[in-house]
Amino acid sequence: MAMTGVLRPGHVQIRVLDLEESVHFYGDVMGLVETGRDSDGRVYFKCWDERDHHSLVLRESDQAGIDFFGFKVLDNTSLEQLEVRLKEHGVDTTRMPAGDLLETGERVRFDLPSGHVMELYAEKTAVGNGLPSMNPSPWNQASENGIAPVRLDHMLLYGPNIAENKKIFEDILDFFLVERVLSEGGDAEVALWLSCSHKVHDIAFVEHPEPGKLHHISFLMDSWEKVLRAGDIMSMNQVAVDIGPTRHGITRGCTIYAWDPSGNRFETFMGGYHPYPDYETITWTWDSFPQGLDYPQRKLHETFLTVVT
Amino acid sequence: MAMTGVLRPGHVQIRVLDLEESVHFYGDVMGLVETGRDSDGRVYFKCWDERDHHSLVLRESDQAGIDFFGFKVLDNTSLEQLEVRLKEHGVDTTRMPAGDLLETGERVRFDLPSGHVMELYAEKTAVGNGLPSMNPSPWNQASENGIAPVRLDHMLLYGPNIAENKKIFEDILDFFLVERVLSEGGDAEVALWLSCSHKVHDIAFVEHPEPGKLHHISFLMDSWEKVLRAGDIMSMNQVAVDIGPTRHGITRGCTIYAWDPSGNRFETFMGGYHPYPDYETITWTWDSFPQGLDYPQRKLHETFLTVVT
Amino acid sequence: MAMTGVLRPGHVQIRVLDLEESVHFYGDVMGLVETGRDSDGRVYFKCWDERDHHSLVLRESDQAGIDFFGFKVLDNTSLEQLEVRLKEHGVDTTRMPAGDLLETGERVRFDLPSGHVMELYAEKTAVGNGLPSMNPSPWNQASENGIAPVRLDHMLLYGPNIAENKKIFEDILDFFLVERVLSEGGDAEVALWLSCSHKVHDIAFVEHPEPGKLHHISFLMDSWEKVLRAGDIMSMNQVAVDIGPTRHGITRGCTIYAWDPSGNRFETFMGGYHPYPDYETITWTWDSFPQGLDYPQRKLHETFLTVVT
Amino acid sequence: MAMTGVLRPGHVQIRVLDLEESVHFYGDVMGLVETGRDSDGRVYFKCWDERDHHSLVLRESDQAGIDFFGFKVLDNTSLEQLEVRLKEHGVDTTRMPAGDLLETGERVRFDLPSGHVMELYAEKTAVGNGLPSMNPSPWNQASENGIAPVRLDHMLLYGPNIAENKKIFEDILDFFLVERVLSEGGDAEVALWLSCSHKVHDIAFVEHPEPGKLHHISFLMDSWEKVLRAGDIMSMNQVAVDIGPTRHGITRGCTIYAWDPSGNRFETFMGGYHPYPDYETITWTWDSFPQGLDYPQRKLHETFLTVVT
Repeated sequence: MAMTGVLRPGHVQIRVLDLEESVHFYGDVMGLVETGRDSDGRVYFKCWDERDHHSLVLRESDQAGIDFFGFKVLDNTSLEQLEVRLKEHGVDTTRMPAGDLLETGERVRFDLPSGHVMELYAEKTAVGNGLPSMNPSPWNQASENGIAPVRLDHMLLYGPNIAENKKIFEDILDFFLVERVLSEGGDAEVALWLSCSHKVHDIAFVEHPEPGKLHHISFLMDSWEKVLRAGDIMSMNQVAVDIGPTRHGITRGCTIYAWDPSGNRFETFMGGYHPYPDYETITWTWDSFPQGLDYPQRKLHETFLTVVT
Repeated sequence: MAMTGVLRPGHVQIRVLDLEESVHFYGDVMGLVETGRDSDGRVYFKCWDERDHHSLVLRESDQAGIDFFGFKVLDNTSLEQLEVRLKEHGVDTTRMPAGDLLETGERVRFDLPSGHVMELYAEKTAVGNGLPSMNPSPWNQASENGIAPVRLDHMLLYGPNIAENKKIFEDILDFFLVERVLSEGGDAEVALWLSCSHKVHDIAFVEHPEPGKLHHISFLMDSWEKVLRAGDIMSMNQVAVDIGPTRHGITRGCTIYAWDPSGNRFETFMGGYHPYPDYETITWTWDSFPQGLDYPQRKLHETFLTVVT
Repeated sequence: MAMTGVLRPGHVQIRVLDLEESVHFYGDVMGLVETGRDSDGRVYFKCWDERDHHSLVLRESDQAGIDFFGFKVLDNTSLEQLEVRLKEHGVDTTRMPAGDLLETGERVRFDLPSGHVMELYAEKTAVGNGLPSMNPSPWNQASENGIAPVRLDHMLLYGPNIAENKKIFEDILDFFLVERVLSEGGDAEVALWLSCSHKVHDIAFVEHPEPGKLHHISFLMDSWEKVLRAGDIMSMNQVAVDIGPTRHGITRGCTIYAWDPSGNRFETFMGGYHPYPDYETITWTWDSFPQGLDYPQRKLHETFLTVVT
Repeated sequence: MAMTGVLRPGHVQIRVLDLEESVHFYGDVMGLVETGRDSDGRVYFKCWDERDHHSLVLRESDQAGIDFFGFKVLDNTSLEQLEVRLKEHGVDTTRMPAGDLLETGERVRFDLPSGHVMELYAEKTAVGNGLPSMNPSPWNQASENGIAPVRLDHMLLYGPNIAENKKIFEDILDFFLVERVLSEGGDAEVALWLSCSHKVHDIAFVEHPEPGKLHHISFLMDSWEKVLRAGDIMSMNQVAVDIGPTRHGITRGCTIYAWDPSGNRFETFMGGYHPYPDYETITWTWDSFPQGLDYPQRKLHETFLTVVT
């Protein structure tokens, strides 16, 4: 009990147009730590304060976007139970072999109704955060190399049938709905923020006609001052910024949206509150969605609804 | 799964020497929201951003200290399962009747080997945080009334037999050990930080000969700047400050320790990292404990080890 | 010597369309302190931490904009010397009588080539900041009433002939040029930031065909977190936001631009560096002006160049 | 006028016991930029955002402490005028030759009644802050190398006859008294904070029987978060911390006091308000001095009054 089952987003594999340019971007500008390259040419990164081997995998391709993402579960027992539950609910699953991703055990893979490929896994080598487990300092130089987020925090994905996604996350994976946006008519949920923890979001979905789209990968910063610093570094490195710095009304998080060199949007954010599964869901009406997106400006940025990879 | 079983510290009842002086302190200086008084004369408070009816209960007495504390569990099924597990492990439990605490359902009460009275409960009236559940603003005036922490975060308790406590929290309640301090000889754990979530601590214990002692109740602030503001307000109101502002090496949290008018220590803190149950425990050796307590100063403040209520 | 002559922007009188709406806005939303109303119906405000009687004067009119602004000088001797110097340089001056503005001594008024009316004055009643001069606390409740800037910091004014303005400020008033923007061809200065102190700007001008225009009045906040809070309060009160929160490349200041109910732009900002008169002027080329304006986004917001009152 | 005469503290020469240990400390831990070494073996440093050649000079000696400090004046005319004024007031002056300090013009040196050696100078080579004067970014990597303060801000000096010092600073050098502490009986000023700008202090004195003592050299940080970071770096490098992080009631500044390897105290601080010469002096009574020193704790740290070099 307590923290069980699905723990957190553990990895996301994205497609980049030019691998070395992207390695430079994620390594030097974003300030992630490169932890490996595999025989398929994929490059693995982790945030400095993450302890598992990787959270971001880059694959070179001629089209940007997301290949798949995986959530870590507590242990192999949880993995098996969740696999059974998925099948019982009619979700086909496939076991990806251990080692297919570097330093990672078997992954239970399945398709979401929104067209995204999701995985659960229980094992990934703990490589640590560069600080000793005995008498550690609170941070080290890696925390100031580039933007240097502390962790992969969540993904916002665009696709159809998010009501079906919601059922899988709520009924099978035991997530709870933290916040949502209603359609203009108020009769449908067009955006969902879901948590398997007391984060304001471990994953989020927006209803969208094209399946399998990535809106953004989100990285956590430690403070509003660090978000400002992230924006400075973006400008120093000619990173294309979409929105921010600003506060979201939704989740209360403080954010910058920007694009990697391939056009994949990412977020550097901090803050938000601490919801629990017994909390009432927060609802945003369509006419307040601009305020939910960009609280000070109350502007429904066109790019937010239309630009995905 | 995900967040199940024990969710979070939900309430703590403390003894205060002068009720009205304490109501002024917790209401006006600390900036908690008074939510009720019962027929026993107890006064109930919540932090502004908490949604349940109360998290702090004051009882007038001629001796300061802690009466009991309670953790909220996910639902009544969890409560029953945990009650069974406690009994199976030889922990006697008592059901406190619904309504004994205002707006609170039945509580499963039991004694810890450290001499503290602990409770689990599943039901407490959700009164909200003063913001609407539809299109809320990120904060309201209550968040600037006095120190105004966002939530009751954890307690640090002093007593004997904390190794026995640890077994109950790990084996029955499914907490995990986030950090610990070893004894001077290195052969015993003299301080334990335990989590049932991805907070750096939901509860902590220090080995101490006297049973049932309170070291501090901790309240969460949103930022390091808010911790500074808390210190300012303490000074403006002649609150006795013990330690801080400073950073803990242990948990990385940033803190002020101070005393309420009855001598009960409290903490206003922010920050720390985000551990999960699959994380390796951080260990502090005795000679690094000063750095763990007060990171910049590396000072083992005498009061930390000796002053409890 | 040291701080002599012209000290700081001391007041600005602006025109508002609806006086009571504006009094509500500047009093309750901006959180200025109302200090008086005169027989002409003008309403006087000061920032909480300012010590002189007022810094903002509202006059009801059917057209928004700026009537005049005044800089405080060290003493009456300075005022007389500056008056002489102005006249020696061919600038006509008029003495406005003491008491014409509440609690204010005689003002030496003159026209700038950009079409703005400027004043110098030596005397205004010190009413204090609400804190005692003996053992003061660092802030009081007024510092959390609305946005609550600490002071009127500077104005950015639009008009023609700013090269002529520059001569007056540099040669007569002993300001120095902190930063500037060159025209597209690089042969003219189209924007000037001038200081009479070690602030990054006490006044700024942008070349513009229409004379006497107000771009914005700027108010100083204590931190980047306070700028975020200002943005929150703007949103809670339906204030129209123009740009930000963001960082300026020019001056390094961190900012939000927004409009008062009459359409007068104001800024809530913090930060910047600390220039001295022996510092080399910083120059921005036209193609880098977008980065100078909005450092993370590097966007030349259309409104910045076109919307003035 | 405006900023004239004495501008700011420009350099301080201190004695260190072990030069290379101190070079490591000021270069790598404090994060100053080494700018030169002279034929006397002195090592020169500047803060990253300072533009003149140096602000800190280290001289190896068998006793820690301060040799002398210098204020930059606007130009050579100011220097000559101030020299004349000093002599007129009976203060003997000596001209130190140009080049005696690297990249520095002639210095007018004189003794203060408190036993300190003070200098005025008009010329020091501007080497810049590492950012271009055309389209600069707001910071660069040097701003994150170690503690990395932005500038030498002020010194607090201990010695006798500070009432005589005050006359020199007020009557000859045109400083103004920002804050002061009265003696226990209230009949004398035992501590003085003086400004030649709108900083809360350019120099400060405490009455003390031994002449020529250094209490601390103060370096400015950009934010309260940077002060916390400074404290972290101190702990990581076993720097001896005296007081803080905390807020001063006096000046409102937020601070850490610590000692360099030779025992010279330094301060990393931020904040405070923005006084002008027309402001009323703030007075602290002796019984409120503890609150003035350490606002949250209200503790008159013994070391503050007794440990100097």
